[in-house]
Amino acid sequence: MPSLAIHRLPMAHPGDMSAIAALIAAGTLRAGDVRAVIGKTEGNGGLNDFTRGFFTQSLMLLLGRETGEDAAVLAARIPCVLSGGTEGALSPHYLVFAIDRAVAGPRGLALGTAFSPPTPAREIGRDAQIAAVAQAVRDAMADAGITRAEDVALVQVKAPCAQAQAPGAEARSTDPRVLMALSRAAAALGVALALGDVAECGEGDLLRDLTKFSSRASISSGIEVTANEVVVFGQAEGWAPGLSIGVAPMADLLDLPGVVAAFRAAGLPADPSVPADQRDRLLGVIAKGEPEKAGHIRGARHTMLGDTDLDAQRHLRGALGAIVASVAGDGQVFVSGGAEHQGPPGGGLVCVFARG
Amino acid sequence: MPSLAIHRLPMAHPGDMSAIAALIAAGTLRAGDVRAVIGKTEGNGGLNDFTRGFFTQSLMLLLGRETGEDAAVLAARIPCVLSGGTEGALSPHYLVFAIDRAVAGPRGLALGTAFSPPTPAREIGRDAQIAAVAQAVRDAMADAGITRAEDVALVQVKAPCAQAQAPGAEARSTDPRVLMALSRAAAALGVALALGDVAECGEGDLLRDLTKFSSRASISSGIEVTANEVVVFGQAEGWAPGLSIGVAPMADLLDLPGVVAAFRAAGLPADPSVPADQRDRLLGVIAKGEPEKAGHIRGARHTMLGDTDLDAQRHLRGALGAIVASVAGDGQVFVSGGAEHQGPPGGGLVCVFARG
Amino acid sequence: MPSLAIHRLPMAHPGDMSAIAALIAAGTLRAGDVRAVIGKTEGNGGLNDFTRGFFTQSLMLLLGRETGEDAAVLAARIPCVLSGGTEGALSPHYLVFAIDRAVAGPRGLALGTAFSPPTPAREIGRDAQIAAVAQAVRDAMADAGITRAEDVALVQVKAPCAQAQAPGAEARSTDPRVLMALSRAAAALGVALALGDVAECGEGDLLRDLTKFSSRASISSGIEVTANEVVVFGQAEGWAPGLSIGVAPMADLLDLPGVVAAFRAAGLPADPSVPADQRDRLLGVIAKGEPEKAGHIRGARHTMLGDTDLDAQRHLRGALGAIVASVAGDGQVFVSGGAEHQGPPGGGLVCVFARG
Amino acid sequence: MPSLAIHRLPMAHPGDMSAIAALIAAGTLRAGDVRAVIGKTEGNGGLNDFTRGFFTQSLMLLLGRETGEDAAVLAARIPCVLSGGTEGALSPHYLVFAIDRAVAGPRGLALGTAFSPPTPAREIGRDAQIAAVAQAVRDAMADAGITRAEDVALVQVKAPCAQAQAPGAEARSTDPRVLMALSRAAAALGVALALGDVAECGEGDLLRDLTKFSSRASISSGIEVTANEVVVFGQAEGWAPGLSIGVAPMADLLDLPGVVAAFRAAGLPADPSVPADQRDRLLGVIAKGEPEKAGHIRGARHTMLGDTDLDAQRHLRGALGAIVASVAGDGQVFVSGGAEHQGPPGGGLVCVFARG
Repeated sequence: MPSLAIHRLPMAHPGDMSAIAALIAAGTLRAGDVRAVIGKTEGNGGLNDFTRGFFTQSLMLLLGRETGEDAAVLAARIPCVLSGGTEGALSPHYLVFAIDRAVAGPRGLALGTAFSPPTPAREIGRDAQIAAVAQAVRDAMADAGITRAEDVALVQVKAPCAQAQAPGAEARSTDPRVLMALSRAAAALGVALALGDVAECGEGDLLRDLTKFSSRASISSGIEVTANEVVVFGQAEGWAPGLSIGVAPMADLLDLPGVVAAFRAAGLPADPSVPADQRDRLLGVIAKGEPEKAGHIRGARHTMLGDTDLDAQRHLRGALGAIVASVAGDGQVFVSGGAEHQGPPGGGLVCVFARG
Repeated sequence: MPSLAIHRLPMAHPGDMSAIAALIAAGTLRAGDVRAVIGKTEGNGGLNDFTRGFFTQSLMLLLGRETGEDAAVLAARIPCVLSGGTEGALSPHYLVFAIDRAVAGPRGLALGTAFSPPTPAREIGRDAQIAAVAQAVRDAMADAGITRAEDVALVQVKAPCAQAQAPGAEARSTDPRVLMALSRAAAALGVALALGDVAECGEGDLLRDLTKFSSRASISSGIEVTANEVVVFGQAEGWAPGLSIGVAPMADLLDLPGVVAAFRAAGLPADPSVPADQRDRLLGVIAKGEPEKAGHIRGARHTMLGDTDLDAQRHLRGALGAIVASVAGDGQVFVSGGAEHQGPPGGGLVCVFARG
Repeated sequence: MPSLAIHRLPMAHPGDMSAIAALIAAGTLRAGDVRAVIGKTEGNGGLNDFTRGFFTQSLMLLLGRETGEDAAVLAARIPCVLSGGTEGALSPHYLVFAIDRAVAGPRGLALGTAFSPPTPAREIGRDAQIAAVAQAVRDAMADAGITRAEDVALVQVKAPCAQAQAPGAEARSTDPRVLMALSRAAAALGVALALGDVAECGEGDLLRDLTKFSSRASISSGIEVTANEVVVFGQAEGWAPGLSIGVAPMADLLDLPGVVAAFRAAGLPADPSVPADQRDRLLGVIAKGEPEKAGHIRGARHTMLGDTDLDAQRHLRGALGAIVASVAGDGQVFVSGGAEHQGPPGGGLVCVFARG
Repeated sequence: MPSLAIHRLPMAHPGDMSAIAALIAAGTLRAGDVRAVIGKTEGNGGLNDFTRGFFTQSLMLLLGRETGEDAAVLAARIPCVLSGGTEGALSPHYLVFAIDRAVAGPRGLALGTAFSPPTPAREIGRDAQIAAVAQAVRDAMADAGITRAEDVALVQVKAPCAQAQAPGAEARSTDPRVLMALSRAAAALGVALALGDVAECGEGDLLRDLTKFSSRASISSGIEVTANEVVVFGQAEGWAPGLSIGVAPMADLLDLPGVVAAFRAAGLPADPSVPADQRDRLLGVIAKGEPEKAGHIRGARHTMLGDTDLDAQRHLRGALGAIVASVAGDGQVFVSGGAEHQGPPGGGLVCVFARG
């Protein structure tokens, strides 16, 4: 089995592929080895954020030129999970996950991917989507060679929302924002089912029974995606050692100890920040969270939900991103809002990738 | 000499005075003892943020009803330092500083206030304003009975910007935003001069020589203020003991250890957050910071300065506020952008008030 | 019966009462004669727009000082209909409607006002609110001496939304934005019922059957109001002549001929703009409209509904306001979004007050 | 000489090329005939608007596939003038200008294009840029076969701003927004010089002497452009008849008669709107304008310049766009802010293309 490499790369704008092009030109990365991309672009993260589609188009063009494959074929094979919005301390960047099959090891951090079939609008937020995601998680585990659910550290899903732009009468909601939330929720519970984090659940639980959740599910949604794209990380036989992963839930937005715990679980001595001389070991961070729904955090009123000028998710990403970045010592952190059924209600989760 | 009390109070909206009214009705606070108010309202913090004026009008009406004094007289005697913008984890609240002259002690946390004369538009950002603020700082120190500059912990100033709404030809800038920044800068260097944090400075240094700064100056500006309103905190003889203050600079936006240091300096065992059983000892937090001007934090590009839809100061407050609130364990934190000459360039400062 | 005067006044900010104070000081206006105020403040027009409350507090304080009445009593007697948001060409201003009872005439433009009892949260968007508004319209007609529904030109209502800030389980919706829309809808159909513009309707029609509407209903809502405040304009015996009113529906946002028709109905020769030498005859303009719900205007896609950074109502007011202002030749135009059941679906209405 | 065709096409999002692909597939348009594209995408129109770059990349990819040319070569040959921001009534769309050389006529509407050499950052807003644009205008006139300046109806320029993202010390301003304005201003005066609309001018006039302007210059700027891209429209011998163009200045934002005049000059009987049965003759509209700098329109205060949450150019486009669209009867109108030296100060211009 192969060796996993993680490259964290900057971008000057959403169409800037110069960093990955340089890696390929230098021979550090083979274009054909790219298995998944997770990144933050500097849009607003909402329905009218086109920076995700621009990045994806640009990336697939570049990889297509390098590999000779058609860009559309690549896009249907390589999950490209983008989250718009780099508020506050956050910095636009992307993580490239590449696999070198010429290397092998006894046991290490493994990656597997899978795509569900395209999801019709009528299935978004329904039992059908939950089941499709659960199956894709199992497929991705098999792809990685992960045999036990407890060996899975994190499942990242890009849930489909292209359908939200013009939902028909058969859709579960005609409000695009609600449909996007339902898509994330269904994907999260699909992960939870596949991993055994919940014993059973159905479409009636979505956005309602928030006690059903997985602290190993990280879901983004976007108008540029039509199927459920799944990336699984975990421990498996045959993979080269050298990379570690740490995941921890956040009880609420201010749960700084929870953030620190994730870094320590990945082997980074955060106290509370990662020391400067350890920062080159940090390979990537993924965090999810969302605005507390009742309007209060630990009893103090927040104003994220009722701001006519600043979207609640932009509020959330700016706050959560800064907390995580202050521990990482670096603004290149993937933070995404909309954490329904991902981590405890009103809270979220943090996942850290580190070297050695 | 007197005893200082600090009340941290919530507001349901910028005109909501029910919390202070309840304190007065309960006999916990005498309206005539109020010496200064520092608070966060939920506006956008910019030129068209009227929540500060609404709060001030509402507060002075209430205090006027209670004391029998005219609201305008009160407004000219009680510094009311408001900062708009409660992005992300921040919560609208205000700190009421009251003095009970019937109590005395050997030495403790002291407060003094002073107002400069009204500042004409032509003096904003000029040597005249720097000198006026320096004199007001000395007056406020005398009011508090603080005799040595090294005993001053923090100087909070509300710098005038009403003049920025329609600056005339004699103003140093016709751009209201620049004039607001110049007003903050002049106030900061006025504080620095009065405290000896810089040996000398002049209007030519404003917004230019950022190596001249005070890590004990916290300046807000607002269109509802016409004079420099100064509040000084420090140690002085004759004040009752029981309150502590901790101040520390932040080297940059991600300087989480700097934030922790301020809490520890105030006697709160932050590790990294203040433990739940110590949170009732936390009386208030003041933080200043600003978007790094070159567009990078520790080498990673940030997007605060070029966002057409989201003002750079809203970006900044959401990020800095969340970091400070995650250490405090509470969103009732005063965070204000525009930290020119307040703390090191690209950084800022944190001040913590605690009990016992 | 009396004479009606309309004063259109500018404001430098939402707490600026200098223009009305000057009128009173000059003897042009008696504070006790003020019967209603309709105005635009420069907030964002949404849930967190506090410019309306700030203006109202400031106005009632001023009128209280002049009349000796308590500000709260005045606020319960004088409808103060404010709409936040002066996007684009719009200019912050307010119309003061005053009645001089010492003057009389044969027949002319009449004004009457009425308040419903306070509306509990559970009644918002229910049959009870529809009935309460219908009764208040009849009361206001009686107050004005208008005896026939066909003599009513316009009914302006400020519908209650303070309840929307924390709707309880008994509320028809827990989404504050939906509750605000329901409140406007119930008020509009209450007007339609009272005037006979619809034969019958009920709470099941609200936001659903948009073929039920009144082109004489203009409704605003705001978090600072707890009852339905009603102002009726129409023709009645005994009122002094000299003022005219013109009202016309708009079929859609681009219905420029509809706008021109309203000005002409008020006797102003718009062709298409009001000529410069006729502009001093223009006393005030009220317009309502809203973003077309299906996302298209005359077949062309608009982007008002899916913009994460710019609220749909801000989009709408900027567009509708500019069209109306370009005919008026003046930006002091009252434009308010949220036109459910006010004018035809996807359209709105325009009302023009003119002299002689 | 050839025949000019104008196709006005919708887009579902900035990467949607389905409309032009359908025209090509149907044989209505030959990809190789495309000479210029002018369009509106639904971004925010500012520094961080990437919808323009996304559209351009998508368009050049499509044309490259059809013509066999490299996308980069096409981008250096076909001016693609995009303006972000479809506030209010505006609708995302693009105008494709194509030339059929197999057709000829005695005299008609002609189009010519030219590119200046790439503009280094130090030349933006300098005499060098003014001269380069003037030369490109002359080149484009020659390309069109227009021999006299008075035969030019409109010059559309896309001015370079990629340099504004990181202006070096040699740039005329280090503020990207100022540099963008300087680039537009230099391009406008370059047009004015070439057409003889001003007798002489230099870099010292830029943004200062606004009495120097051209009512035939329409300039956009964008971070995705590195050279001055020029498109000239006018009357020339040898072109097929059948298309008309009307251009008129707007004295200020509310100059509705000015807008109507441009439509009538193009032969469309606007009264005030274009009648429904004439709308298929309308081929395209281009309008420029900007927020009045002193904060007042005809004496009434506007709030476009001091809104912390809503950019002044978004305010402007929403207002101007709605006025123009209400005359056109259609939201597919190109409206762009930043009209320095384009039309009279505080005003702008409107250009209408019509069929026969």
